[in-house]
Amino acid sequence: MKPCDAPTMKDVAREAGVSLGTVSKVINGIPVGEQYRKRVEAATEKLGYQVNNYARGLKTNKTYCVALVMPSLHHPFFAVLVNELSEYLMQQGYRSLLMITNYDSLVEKKCFSLAQQNKIDGIIALTYSPDLDVDESISVVTIDRHISNHPCVSSDNFHGGELAAEKLMELGCKKLLFLHIGNVIVGEAEKRGPGFENACRTAGADYHSIWLTDQDTEAPFFRFLEEHIHNGKLEYDGIFCNSDGLGVRVCEFLKARGIRIPEDVQIIGYDGIVDYATGRYGCSTIVQPIAEMAQTAVNLLLNQQGTLAPRNTSLAVHYAPGGTTRD
Amino acid sequence: MKPCDAPTMKDVAREAGVSLGTVSKVINGIPVGEQYRKRVEAATEKLGYQVNNYARGLKTNKTYCVALVMPSLHHPFFAVLVNELSEYLMQQGYRSLLMITNYDSLVEKKCFSLAQQNKIDGIIALTYSPDLDVDESISVVTIDRHISNHPCVSSDNFHGGELAAEKLMELGCKKLLFLHIGNVIVGEAEKRGPGFENACRTAGADYHSIWLTDQDTEAPFFRFLEEHIHNGKLEYDGIFCNSDGLGVRVCEFLKARGIRIPEDVQIIGYDGIVDYATGRYGCSTIVQPIAEMAQTAVNLLLNQQGTLAPRNTSLAVHYAPGGTTRD
Repeated sequence: MKPCDAPTMKDVAREAGVSLGTVSKVINGIPVGEQYRKRVEAATEKLGYQVNNYARGLKTNKTYCVALVMPSLHHPFFAVLVNELSEYLMQQGYRSLLMITNYDSLVEKKCFSLAQQNKIDGIIALTYSPDLDVDESISVVTIDRHISNHPCVSSDNFHGGELAAEKLMELGCKKLLFLHIGNVIVGEAEKRGPGFENACRTAGADYHSIWLTDQDTEAPFFRFLEEHIHNGKLEYDGIFCNSDGLGVRVCEFLKARGIRIPEDVQIIGYDGIVDYATGRYGCSTIVQPIAEMAQTAVNLLLNQQGTLAPRNTSLAVHYAPGGTTRD
Repeated sequence: MKPCDAPTMKDVAREAGVSLGTVSKVINGIPVGEQYRKRVEAATEKLGYQVNNYARGLKTNKTYCVALVMPSLHHPFFAVLVNELSEYLMQQGYRSLLMITNYDSLVEKKCFSLAQQNKIDGIIALTYSPDLDVDESISVVTIDRHISNHPCVSSDNFHGGELAAEKLMELGCKKLLFLHIGNVIVGEAEKRGPGFENACRTAGADYHSIWLTDQDTEAPFFRFLEEHIHNGKLEYDGIFCNSDGLGVRVCEFLKARGIRIPEDVQIIGYDGIVDYATGRYGCSTIVQPIAEMAQTAVNLLLNQQGTLAPRNTSLAVHYAPGGTTRD
């Protein structure tokens, strides 16, 4: 149908036998008499009238559009997260404005500014800047990393860390190692390590942690591992890595030095990333519930009212074997 | 800045000492006297006036918004494509409306209808429905698969197929096999096989092709391979698969039967998908130039004028070794 043939609100009013104001009220969700509402709805359906969302955006201050501010789709965790967010938003009648920041805090600021210029209804963001300015009229929900006091949705990172330690101990590991690399900005994902350490302490287990927070290179991990291999044997027999990517790389490094995985050393990662070609996990892992995280973020955003929303919403994780543990 | 404090067009007019109409003309790119334009621009900058893009959308019929209609971000090819499209669109001053179809032709139709209701400037789509209705006023560019006569951007699939055959022959393969699985809808990606066969014929090489176009399961490939293994040896020594995913799965299947890759059989896939954890290709591959494809699609869309755009734009591919060939 060409735009010039499209029915207008006037056509709907004529068909329904009501005033233009009544049609406008029904479209904008303002209460009118039940009988008027039904007539307008019937006329809308009969004529195939479609609301002009731009005009609607101006009138009701609602644009049915949510900005997704995300670092990159090269990483499968973000790609799947955006997929689930966008699909669920569409099911709720909302559009997704995708903004890729490439992990750049200047771009993050630009995206937040653009999103607000575009009068969107809300922002769902995974950013590395804790101090982004947001207009009070715009709802914001973050994933994994906080922005001032906006609600944040994540997997239960602390319990995920506990689960990894408990699983390694259950599978016979006696000397545990935790490897963490990440941004200096502390977010929910930084609770994986404390959870792991807590479970080790509780069980009286022998463990060591290495935190790399101020650099981009994982080289110190590999130097540490190299220094702790004696006579072809690593001093540690259970390793928890704060991502599956790191888990896969540590596994490859040790295998290349003749250390058998999982016979000599068992490794657990975090994320639950599935290979697109084989459908398998790259290593044993703590699985984040990505679809549930996306739905929770959208629900929180669309139902946000004042300060009632919880600051943190952590969703249950589970452990899955992926070939780097003896199960 | 709160919305109530934001400067309006009236404030700009007062500051510049011009009429409201003059401000409107400058904002909408309509020529006014040079001196008026400069005064309006200076006032706009001084006050930090930001154009309300929704009001602008109604006035100039341009929304600076492009819909990206894509099957899924679970597959890294689509995820990286959307990443590149969205980043490049933002650089050009355009927003990206992401719509995920989940390979469902009903959802594809819904997305096209929604995109048009939202008065976007154009659509970049990778769909499996050749007959989607598009309003004449909306520019459309497709990736890989055609929609009526809209311009289509793809990698040079035919030459990619030729390149795979030539590379396998160059690496010593004597008996070649091509495996294709895909949708019944014929698109640019379906030229990989003909390219491969053409190069085999030209070289007088011994080859066989299997096309699965009407089913979802790859089982017939594996039955065929099983039937052509005699005394632990596959009858074919070079295989071209129409995707990296299939290449990886064929490689695993043969290895599990004691066939050595690349010593006994060499395998080349198509796509150039890099593992997020290791940065390596899953198999030797014909690499699609995803960033260039995204930029070309955006440029074609934004500069589209009548029927001048070419129906097909095929961008150069290259071969990359990935451990499943003897190079």
